[in-house]
Amino acid sequence: MNIPKGFKFVGLHCGIKRKRKDLGIIYSEKPCIAAGVFTTNVVKAAPVVYNMEVLEKSFKNIRAIVVNSGVANACTGEQGMKNTIKMAEKTAKELGIPVDSVLVSSTGLIGVQLPMEKIESGIEEAAKNLAEDPLPFAEAIMTTDTVTKTSSVRVEINGKEVNVLGVAKGSGMIHPNMATMLSFILTDAQITPEALKKLLKASVDKTYNMIDVDGDTSTNDMVLILANGLSDALEIHEGTEEFQKFSEAIDIVNTELAKKIVEDGEGATKLMEVKVINAPNVNVAKKVALSVVSSNLVKTAIYGEDANWGRVFAAAGYSGAMFDHSRLDLYIESEKNRIMVAKDGCEYPFDEIEAKEILSSKYVRLILDMKQGNGEATAWGSDLTEKYVEINGRYRT
Amino acid sequence: MNIPKGFKFVGLHCGIKRKRKDLGIIYSEKPCIAAGVFTTNVVKAAPVVYNMEVLEKSFKNIRAIVVNSGVANACTGEQGMKNTIKMAEKTAKELGIPVDSVLVSSTGLIGVQLPMEKIESGIEEAAKNLAEDPLPFAEAIMTTDTVTKTSSVRVEINGKEVNVLGVAKGSGMIHPNMATMLSFILTDAQITPEALKKLLKASVDKTYNMIDVDGDTSTNDMVLILANGLSDALEIHEGTEEFQKFSEAIDIVNTELAKKIVEDGEGATKLMEVKVINAPNVNVAKKVALSVVSSNLVKTAIYGEDANWGRVFAAAGYSGAMFDHSRLDLYIESEKNRIMVAKDGCEYPFDEIEAKEILSSKYVRLILDMKQGNGEATAWGSDLTEKYVEINGRYRT
Repeated sequence: MNIPKGFKFVGLHCGIKRKRKDLGIIYSEKPCIAAGVFTTNVVKAAPVVYNMEVLEKSFKNIRAIVVNSGVANACTGEQGMKNTIKMAEKTAKELGIPVDSVLVSSTGLIGVQLPMEKIESGIEEAAKNLAEDPLPFAEAIMTTDTVTKTSSVRVEINGKEVNVLGVAKGSGMIHPNMATMLSFILTDAQITPEALKKLLKASVDKTYNMIDVDGDTSTNDMVLILANGLSDALEIHEGTEEFQKFSEAIDIVNTELAKKIVEDGEGATKLMEVKVINAPNVNVAKKVALSVVSSNLVKTAIYGEDANWGRVFAAAGYSGAMFDHSRLDLYIESEKNRIMVAKDGCEYPFDEIEAKEILSSKYVRLILDMKQGNGEATAWGSDLTEKYVEINGRYRT
Repeated sequence: MNIPKGFKFVGLHCGIKRKRKDLGIIYSEKPCIAAGVFTTNVVKAAPVVYNMEVLEKSFKNIRAIVVNSGVANACTGEQGMKNTIKMAEKTAKELGIPVDSVLVSSTGLIGVQLPMEKIESGIEEAAKNLAEDPLPFAEAIMTTDTVTKTSSVRVEINGKEVNVLGVAKGSGMIHPNMATMLSFILTDAQITPEALKKLLKASVDKTYNMIDVDGDTSTNDMVLILANGLSDALEIHEGTEEFQKFSEAIDIVNTELAKKIVEDGEGATKLMEVKVINAPNVNVAKKVALSVVSSNLVKTAIYGEDANWGRVFAAAGYSGAMFDHSRLDLYIESEKNRIMVAKDGCEYPFDEIEAKEILSSKYVRLILDMKQGNGEATAWGSDLTEKYVEINGRYRT
């Protein structure tokens, strides 16, 4: 793992959950340039509202992110906001940094107040145990996740090494724009606030906003990026070659994390990638790709390993985008093989056994060639299984 | 059942499906005023495109609807359109009526061509067996439906009896706007074409467009209404009291059919009604109600009989409508009992056993009081179960 210079991590159990880790902190030795993208849900959790306000003013001075799992602190009214502020205050006090240099994040059950006593003593303990290893932190932010999710790259900027590390969680309530999904991207790059904000937004649109598990957009989603400038590389400015290079590095990390989230989708057995090519334009490509990965009928067909291409066309058709459906070609692809299953909007004779073999792969790609322009987009989705229903029929009680 | 005068029905097995009835005809002794509402999916099945064209010209002269189940005739290109025309021609010939007085409808698997020989001999046989009873027809249009769906009312118009009968099918791919849903409304009322068109559109918006099983909008949906004027009642004109009365009768039939479709949703064990009251306006109420009934997480919670009100607020929040979520109250209700579970956007202490008892009912109502206006809307949805996944993981193969 390429851990950016100057960041420390901690993750521990403070008692919100029964046994598993439920509290984590990311700390930076130096103030960071920071940017965030937040849920579009009208019902925003207290920490989402809080961070949006903090970032308005302190986007050049962020030092820490404190996160709890188990309780989302959403639909908790004034008390919820007070508790978020208290989490920031306590973290600031224990770390000896300004209150407005701390961002807060929560994920878990909606509508329950945070157990503040447990959280406060948890923060006290956490502050004393900061370390190099990001994994305990990655564990502490999990809810229904079954695996930790990290991704990192090293990129050369002006001949100097820059590191990017991403840590994310997410498994259910996953749908663009955003989801019960937290992602924290850390880098030792030096970069202007404007450039950082711009590249984060662009990257989120291509990655987290192109995934779907269950069509539900959460109240708590956020992606935060902190750049502490501790690498030796020169400051990155918008519109330069180095900006492009750094953007690509961020995209790599975000794409990997986005795919990991979908792969770990509640009850999922497969990761489906839908690549739309030659669309009338990029917007049509995006709408169609997202509509297909989000369709319950496509998801169940993928689960059933059934090349039911008609469901793909139907989902493309109700995406809200306008196009000529009589031109669509569809291919299905695994790592080993690729076959055409529909041509010019109609059935194309294919071998059912071969199709079944491709669809039995863990990573299935659908390539929809619209043959009417050069718009392109890729989206990722999980399949829909009995297990998803089981998990979500029982989550709260 | 209140069967409108002058209509005859038939339903039989012609060989598209293995055993069950798969071809039906509705016939009217007298030319009908007709109107239709069709799927908004860009990918429209051949009979949808065909009927839209026929209705443009022949909306005063419709005599029959021929319907097959088993194959949807969607994504079938030019051959598909030729087959639809052939179905109309054959029906016209056998019944001795003009070709452009016949509407065509198909439902079933996408992307397969119709077995025209079977269908043509089926139409030949069907034309000889028209009868009073609509039930064989109701059976012939079923796909994954487990029960036939009919509804009828009698209403007095200018002191004379008018009958309205609706026959519908639908179970999966159910989402506004429209679904793999066919609904045929028949009446012996006399009515102007403008009035009929207007009231059908308004009624569909309140009924079929407010239901959700799985979020998928089909390629084949249609609602057709035929009025043959054979009752003794005077002609109904827009804006009159009798128009209002007749509209209400149509609404009753469509509401009942819409609810029956959801109740028979693939794998469904419960019918959930979401009533939004005191919304800023009607559009917000509609968006919120639909978003809640369509949420996979709300559906699974209802299935799990879990009063997880946070998911309801989250789904309201991502509906695309703007509102103040700190005012929302939520009630859950069965036939016997009603309790408040959230107040002013936050948790409201409730008895879990009582809540579970309410949610164990077959028909569950969620009442969301937004307390910020007087907009109102109701939507209906099924729950989401393991059975849905099982059905749709295996439908085609």
